[in-house]
Amino acid sequence: MKKLNWGMIGGGEGSQIGPAHRLGAQADGNFTLAAGALDVDAERGSAYAQSLGVAPDRAYADWQEMLAGEAARRDRVDLVTVATPNSTHFEITKAFLEAGFNVLCEKPMTLTVEEGEEIVRVARASGKICAVNYCYSAYPMVREMRQMVATGQLGKVRLIVTNFSHGHHGDATDADNPRVRWRYDPAMAGVSGQFADCGIHALHMASFIAGDDVSTLSADFASTIPSRVLEDDAMVNFRMAGGAVGRLWSSSVAIGRQHGFDIQVFGETGGLRWASEQPNQVYYTPVGGRTQIMEKGEAGLSDEAGRLSRVAIAHPEGFPLAVANIYVDLAAAIRGEARDSLPLAEDGLRSMAAVYAAVASAKEHGAWVDARPPMFR
Amino acid sequence: MKKLNWGMIGGGEGSQIGPAHRLGAQADGNFTLAAGALDVDAERGSAYAQSLGVAPDRAYADWQEMLAGEAARRDRVDLVTVATPNSTHFEITKAFLEAGFNVLCEKPMTLTVEEGEEIVRVARASGKICAVNYCYSAYPMVREMRQMVATGQLGKVRLIVTNFSHGHHGDATDADNPRVRWRYDPAMAGVSGQFADCGIHALHMASFIAGDDVSTLSADFASTIPSRVLEDDAMVNFRMAGGAVGRLWSSSVAIGRQHGFDIQVFGETGGLRWASEQPNQVYYTPVGGRTQIMEKGEAGLSDEAGRLSRVAIAHPEGFPLAVANIYVDLAAAIRGEARDSLPLAEDGLRSMAAVYAAVASAKEHGAWVDARPPMFR
Amino acid sequence: MKKLNWGMIGGGEGSQIGPAHRLGAQADGNFTLAAGALDVDAERGSAYAQSLGVAPDRAYADWQEMLAGEAARRDRVDLVTVATPNSTHFEITKAFLEAGFNVLCEKPMTLTVEEGEEIVRVARASGKICAVNYCYSAYPMVREMRQMVATGQLGKVRLIVTNFSHGHHGDATDADNPRVRWRYDPAMAGVSGQFADCGIHALHMASFIAGDDVSTLSADFASTIPSRVLEDDAMVNFRMAGGAVGRLWSSSVAIGRQHGFDIQVFGETGGLRWASEQPNQVYYTPVGGRTQIMEKGEAGLSDEAGRLSRVAIAHPEGFPLAVANIYVDLAAAIRGEARDSLPLAEDGLRSMAAVYAAVASAKEHGAWVDARPPMFR
Amino acid sequence: MKKLNWGMIGGGEGSQIGPAHRLGAQADGNFTLAAGALDVDAERGSAYAQSLGVAPDRAYADWQEMLAGEAARRDRVDLVTVATPNSTHFEITKAFLEAGFNVLCEKPMTLTVEEGEEIVRVARASGKICAVNYCYSAYPMVREMRQMVATGQLGKVRLIVTNFSHGHHGDATDADNPRVRWRYDPAMAGVSGQFADCGIHALHMASFIAGDDVSTLSADFASTIPSRVLEDDAMVNFRMAGGAVGRLWSSSVAIGRQHGFDIQVFGETGGLRWASEQPNQVYYTPVGGRTQIMEKGEAGLSDEAGRLSRVAIAHPEGFPLAVANIYVDLAAAIRGEARDSLPLAEDGLRSMAAVYAAVASAKEHGAWVDARPPMFR
Repeated sequence: MKKLNWGMIGGGEGSQIGPAHRLGAQADGNFTLAAGALDVDAERGSAYAQSLGVAPDRAYADWQEMLAGEAARRDRVDLVTVATPNSTHFEITKAFLEAGFNVLCEKPMTLTVEEGEEIVRVARASGKICAVNYCYSAYPMVREMRQMVATGQLGKVRLIVTNFSHGHHGDATDADNPRVRWRYDPAMAGVSGQFADCGIHALHMASFIAGDDVSTLSADFASTIPSRVLEDDAMVNFRMAGGAVGRLWSSSVAIGRQHGFDIQVFGETGGLRWASEQPNQVYYTPVGGRTQIMEKGEAGLSDEAGRLSRVAIAHPEGFPLAVANIYVDLAAAIRGEARDSLPLAEDGLRSMAAVYAAVASAKEHGAWVDARPPMFR
Repeated sequence: MKKLNWGMIGGGEGSQIGPAHRLGAQADGNFTLAAGALDVDAERGSAYAQSLGVAPDRAYADWQEMLAGEAARRDRVDLVTVATPNSTHFEITKAFLEAGFNVLCEKPMTLTVEEGEEIVRVARASGKICAVNYCYSAYPMVREMRQMVATGQLGKVRLIVTNFSHGHHGDATDADNPRVRWRYDPAMAGVSGQFADCGIHALHMASFIAGDDVSTLSADFASTIPSRVLEDDAMVNFRMAGGAVGRLWSSSVAIGRQHGFDIQVFGETGGLRWASEQPNQVYYTPVGGRTQIMEKGEAGLSDEAGRLSRVAIAHPEGFPLAVANIYVDLAAAIRGEARDSLPLAEDGLRSMAAVYAAVASAKEHGAWVDARPPMFR
Repeated sequence: MKKLNWGMIGGGEGSQIGPAHRLGAQADGNFTLAAGALDVDAERGSAYAQSLGVAPDRAYADWQEMLAGEAARRDRVDLVTVATPNSTHFEITKAFLEAGFNVLCEKPMTLTVEEGEEIVRVARASGKICAVNYCYSAYPMVREMRQMVATGQLGKVRLIVTNFSHGHHGDATDADNPRVRWRYDPAMAGVSGQFADCGIHALHMASFIAGDDVSTLSADFASTIPSRVLEDDAMVNFRMAGGAVGRLWSSSVAIGRQHGFDIQVFGETGGLRWASEQPNQVYYTPVGGRTQIMEKGEAGLSDEAGRLSRVAIAHPEGFPLAVANIYVDLAAAIRGEARDSLPLAEDGLRSMAAVYAAVASAKEHGAWVDARPPMFR
Repeated sequence: MKKLNWGMIGGGEGSQIGPAHRLGAQADGNFTLAAGALDVDAERGSAYAQSLGVAPDRAYADWQEMLAGEAARRDRVDLVTVATPNSTHFEITKAFLEAGFNVLCEKPMTLTVEEGEEIVRVARASGKICAVNYCYSAYPMVREMRQMVATGQLGKVRLIVTNFSHGHHGDATDADNPRVRWRYDPAMAGVSGQFADCGIHALHMASFIAGDDVSTLSADFASTIPSRVLEDDAMVNFRMAGGAVGRLWSSSVAIGRQHGFDIQVFGETGGLRWASEQPNQVYYTPVGGRTQIMEKGEAGLSDEAGRLSRVAIAHPEGFPLAVANIYVDLAAAIRGEARDSLPLAEDGLRSMAAVYAAVASAKEHGAWVDARPPMFR
């Protein structure tokens, strides 16, 4: 199978997210890093791109130059990953889609609902793939849970409880640390802090596994460290279109919780439990029966789980390979195979609508509000 | 040390709660079962009481007879446990307090806030002990957590997250089972189902460990099994007087969760995590440090934890001995020692106020309401 | 049901084991402490016995006086518990059996194989019960495992792996602490240290669950703290009569392990795993299937497990109630019911034979030796 | 940094180990697959190599052709991975070393001790790297444990207990499955079954973390499924040169254990515990203190742990990235940096000596034998 050409915007030397994307794209041999605009410092970005094997003429100074350069090539990149600061996602993603590129955008896809709707429109018009990196949904056992719900093994879903709560911003004496502070500053982070940063992963997961969308929500936000303007702790109750009840807690001051992302799904005939720190197991309980430990790689799992696992049962696979699974699906989709589980622009838009709904609800003391984007109402 | 005389109302043959109280009272040799009105069937109750060693003249036909009989004796019981159906707690507890007996009442202490206030007034006037069986608070490691907060090891408490969610009522095909159904029927259970049954244990625990009271709350109730009138799933957000934020989830349809009671307490300088299914450990994380596993029985614990543990470190002690610890503290209190950690009528009242507040809030779509009993406002 | 009269030798004020026995005997209301010789200091022992409710004339100065006194009474005690220092177990147990008393002896039952055989002979001749306190075997879920093997749910047992390894003697700077030192001193502890102290619990458990006896063994002993004469770490490989392979590791220098007692049983058609620090769960895996979490109190367990559990599923029960279960079975046996699972003198003898066999093997560099008592060969 | 050229022998389409090596070599962008002889079927191997991006003239028919072809090139591969059937490792590894290539050989490096010694001699003479894929040693937290021992945080190591026991060959009805059967057939697997397959990983790990070599051992082997000639269950007691005691259990019939590889290290001043199914945590207990949960990615870890971790704390990294870490170290070593932790030919030789020693001991009923290769005595 011919390797696909891949381009990256952002993710330069020293970035956290860059290595995960490079590993993700390259791990399975699907993509070659062929072009990049990796850094706001053009020179540094170009040098770093070349150190990673990018040809000098494709080690671009900025994304505009890359757009122009790649659009003009016959061997233009098959996929562009946008891993720049949040405020630039909209503009870059839109531009590349309009120029006919497939895009994988880091979350949050946009900073407003209107921008999100615009991306959805542009993506649909372009006929290109616009994926959003909700990478947790690409763990094999998360796909398995989704399949179990879809095939009715849990009956109707009644209740979803999900947490994405860590304690890494719990030290008030570190609150002025620039890497922490910007997240709670509306000037830099927008309308929401912890919920927009972590909570939307949990909300996407709930929809992803349930195969249903959030319709209304009620939120309670708190800034437990008083100097913060935006929330560092959020509770969101929600209802899905199909009637399922949701509970979502997201915090960054839960000292002692490390990654802290987990989800429980309860249906008429069974329950599921999964946690991101032990992503290779699912605890499944049929109603009236014993809890069973399901293992990645065990016999009898769905194709979705099977094809996204690389090593045998009980050999753990972790976060970077969940990112890699997004690229596995992107490669397949680019090559023309159907990949229904890929998180797309519509998912990015729904997240943004939920963020604004939660902010509005929290301001109105928990009033229930519509969580859907206007274009999906 | 002379044994104390103990009387029991309810808890007859075949009851769930009776054995736990008898074990609790007798395990440490503090109490002798001296009197009882154990059953609505007077004959059966008397026979059973005698089979447990109660003298025939103190194996009473009903609580009224027992009140009269014991009040007339010089060797009257030192403590009466009320383990009758919920709707009778108020009447019996009040009558025995007024007659000058110490009482341990099962939860819920009353069915209304007004009754709760009445019990508090009567108890205060009587000078007697009116305890409520919030037995989880008597686990050694729960006492240790309370001490840690009280001595400032966590700094100011910012956030408490507690769940009491099981799946034992999750089978809709079993929903008409009488042992299950009454809990969701207002005619029998009152204004609240799962929150009043389990949630108030969690709410008491939050207050107990934080050393603070709930002031306001916002609730979202759901009957996920449609035939139910009362809620089988509840989410309650709250604020404590000292400003701490609270999140409490209680469900009975969380299939796969067994006992499902846990609590996390997050302060300025550390976090704690405890779960009732592994009650002998606490996970403690100092801010910026590693999570430490604290063990019941380890060197250096507080007196509160130490004196309520019977066997060496890592020899687990379980639920029945938590109940026994309530009796250990009652025996000490009756003998005149201070026992500040005993859950009392005031706690029973606060629970009832919170239940009514949650019901009101849920009806008003999550409006924030005052959770305090009127007499404490 | 009339309460039985119970007498205790040893277990005076401040002893570790005394409270566990008193709780065990009294928790379920089966026994009343009617007589005792609790302390080597006669006066202190008598005073303490009376403080526990023993009548002055049955608060004896020593076991000989108690034997004489009780033998002369018509309401003599129904059961005597021997909880004295190890070196006195043989003499006291033998004397009470010969006088026609039922006895529960703490482990080790004797210090030599010959003494063990003598106790077995005396017990058989007496027609009385001589039980040994292998209390771990009385956990409900341990009984369940035994039933599963007995009813063929695992097929033929192939392999048993058990550990009883803690780290509480791992501090060399504390090795001269008298409470620690005696265990590794042949003058006080006999021929074996850690294996005789903890290992024999594990060995008994292996036989108990498998329903089979150890026939041969090979041992490797080490004194990892050089000042110790007796072993603080032991590995024993064994074979059972039915061919099952055994692996037993016991250590007291495994720093970080707390109680550290667990067992795994592997048969032709399934495997089991249990650990004493979470005694209410068993992990069961049918061959080719998923691991299932079995819970104390779940529907469908055996009578053996059911009748030894006091509170509902997922309400944990711990070590003191495992001891209490031994007393539950003793009360039943004294009242004439069959109790096949009670650990008896024969089990105490087999342990002693295994200890001597392991010591001999270790001295011969792991040579395989017969582990059976001569009288059972 | 220029990418290195990498060649692979074996690991063709459908092989288990091939994908792990390709991911390992490519994940971090260090190596490009430049040459290969991937399959015994020359045509299929060549086609597959080309599908992976290998140029047609470097998609060789067999290893001999590859050796000739690469040796003649100026841009010859910088590293050759040998992932062929076990019986061919010796011959191929030796040939490539002699021709001046760096080699990474799958385990077992050879089938005899003599061959192992030959490889060590050849590797030393060549001045090239001969690494063996003991990939578990490359987990960040395993490196951290090694550093903790090396820097004295545990004091002198007293005791190491390690298990590599799974249940995937526990179904006797599947024992004739060719993928299972060959492992217990001396004609195909050599002198040892389970110990040579899994046990040597555990033994290497013990030496790796302790920084010490096994000197003597005593083994007990069993074929619990009677049709098997070679052992499916092995217990090996050992002593290290520095005096540490070792216990190693390895089984393939432990139904319910999945991967089942764990290690505990106990020293004078602390203990460590790690398990391959949760490889990102280490449980560390200082003597007299509480158990602490160490996390991959936490502040303050050693450089060894830090540089082998790719994503932030509590984002799990799994088995394929442990393999990748071997390649990270190989790339560094090839580029001239010191990499003292890489498992080398000497380690492969020691494993083979231990296998033969264990087989000899087991035949002699557990006699203690020298476990060292003759050339290291």
